[in-house]
Amino acid sequence: MQLLQKNKCFDGEQRTYQIESACLKGSSKFAVFLPSQALAGQQCAALFYLAGLTCTEETFVIKAHAQRLAAQLGLILISPDTSPRGDDVEQGDSWDIGQGAGFYLNATQAPWAEHFKMEDFLIQELYPLLLQELPILEQSIGIFGHSMGGHGALTLAWKYPEKFSSVSAFAPICAPIQCPWGQKAFSQYLGTDQSSWTQHDATELVKSKGALFSEVLVDQGLDDQFYSQLNPALFKSACDVAGQKISLREHAGYDHGYFFIQSFIDDHLQFHALQLQK
Amino acid sequence: MQLLQKNKCFDGEQRTYQIESACLKGSSKFAVFLPSQALAGQQCAALFYLAGLTCTEETFVIKAHAQRLAAQLGLILISPDTSPRGDDVEQGDSWDIGQGAGFYLNATQAPWAEHFKMEDFLIQELYPLLLQELPILEQSIGIFGHSMGGHGALTLAWKYPEKFSSVSAFAPICAPIQCPWGQKAFSQYLGTDQSSWTQHDATELVKSKGALFSEVLVDQGLDDQFYSQLNPALFKSACDVAGQKISLREHAGYDHGYFFIQSFIDDHLQFHALQLQK
Repeated sequence: MQLLQKNKCFDGEQRTYQIESACLKGSSKFAVFLPSQALAGQQCAALFYLAGLTCTEETFVIKAHAQRLAAQLGLILISPDTSPRGDDVEQGDSWDIGQGAGFYLNATQAPWAEHFKMEDFLIQELYPLLLQELPILEQSIGIFGHSMGGHGALTLAWKYPEKFSSVSAFAPICAPIQCPWGQKAFSQYLGTDQSSWTQHDATELVKSKGALFSEVLVDQGLDDQFYSQLNPALFKSACDVAGQKISLREHAGYDHGYFFIQSFIDDHLQFHALQLQK
Repeated sequence: MQLLQKNKCFDGEQRTYQIESACLKGSSKFAVFLPSQALAGQQCAALFYLAGLTCTEETFVIKAHAQRLAAQLGLILISPDTSPRGDDVEQGDSWDIGQGAGFYLNATQAPWAEHFKMEDFLIQELYPLLLQELPILEQSIGIFGHSMGGHGALTLAWKYPEKFSSVSAFAPICAPIQCPWGQKAFSQYLGTDQSSWTQHDATELVKSKGALFSEVLVDQGLDDQFYSQLNPALFKSACDVAGQKISLREHAGYDHGYFFIQSFIDDHLQFHALQLQK
């Protein structure tokens, strides 16, 4: 882990690291907020935050306004990049595919399969590395995210419940196999055989694996310009059928962006802190 | 005032406006946060925030993390751009002069004098326009800023105390006539006759005009990479001599950036709210 930058922030430190990733076959950046408790050597709960399309490891750090309460609650915040990067990595023909649009899965199709292994990167590489390098309480790790990153948080939580003890999302892509963004990404990354797609669809995962968490928190703006891509009702319905407790909060007037996220970020940090203390 | 964008945020609205400015001879953008109290028609206290070198009207909005507490306190937040902009506006040969580096004064020298009239723009044009267009309590307007914008806040407060009832700053350029940034900007904008410079130097203004505010709050990081440009001790000394109460807080480990600002932004909002309620 190469430390690229650190800045004191609320008596803790906001840091940016870079690692050489075997999974991604290239370097990858991620950001970490360490509260003062962690700097003092105390083991702390940690949250992975997965960002949305076009974002980087910086987006959450700058726009979500999470550091103040994380400092207070003693939470470590980890925000990875959204895809592999670099000159030798396929760029993609638009903002919803390729660099900045990794969808947190392992691509199996050319030209993507070479580098686009975000699921393995996060679960097999970054997760154990950070457990080793940072003062993280192993049984107190949560995951959350926004839009494509909300999809990532929900699907990875359902696939790896032994790794994540709490999960929440802002405006997640809840049923990617039923929306244009997901259909485009999955057909390119996973191929046209749709049997593999269900393993990367939060709604399908809840149907097949059932209730896994004591509660899931999802916030959704009702003026979200991408509402038709998100399908929160399908996810809630699957949760209800599976007996998975879900708090789907719909907020009049809020859109898809970080002004929405910052308005409710404190609720998510409190939610995770409470779940992780159980 | 042309509304370019609005986003719901903490039950209020973050807005971006553009106006055609007679002073700047061109269009200028500024951002406004309106708390829910203002949207409901209640007259609210307002704070002007002036940003630093290279910044725009967006910087404060994204990076300072002020909306949460402003919503709670019922404060309107106004953040103008840092200079005139446009293809017909002199660009400057580096990041510390020209576009993004207006220094909140009226340039008198070619090629700057044509557009660089930020002082008149703020005081004669934007201030009365916003009093007319937004539900601002006229006797409850404060000003604060960062670095070059801290210089702007302190100097404009001392020049127009009838317009601003409270003032604070993050890492302000306290004595521009005694530092390289200020000397470069003032010699280009105001000419080499230094007699006009003192009207734009916070330390000199306190010396000449004396104590004008019940208290001034200045936060300064001690790991500030631009510390040698800022001279907080000179300003404090001038305040002490003048009998101007000042709270100069020096913070170990903090640098010049917005991770520092967000760490103490709540204190500034509380400070202004208290001063403006008097």
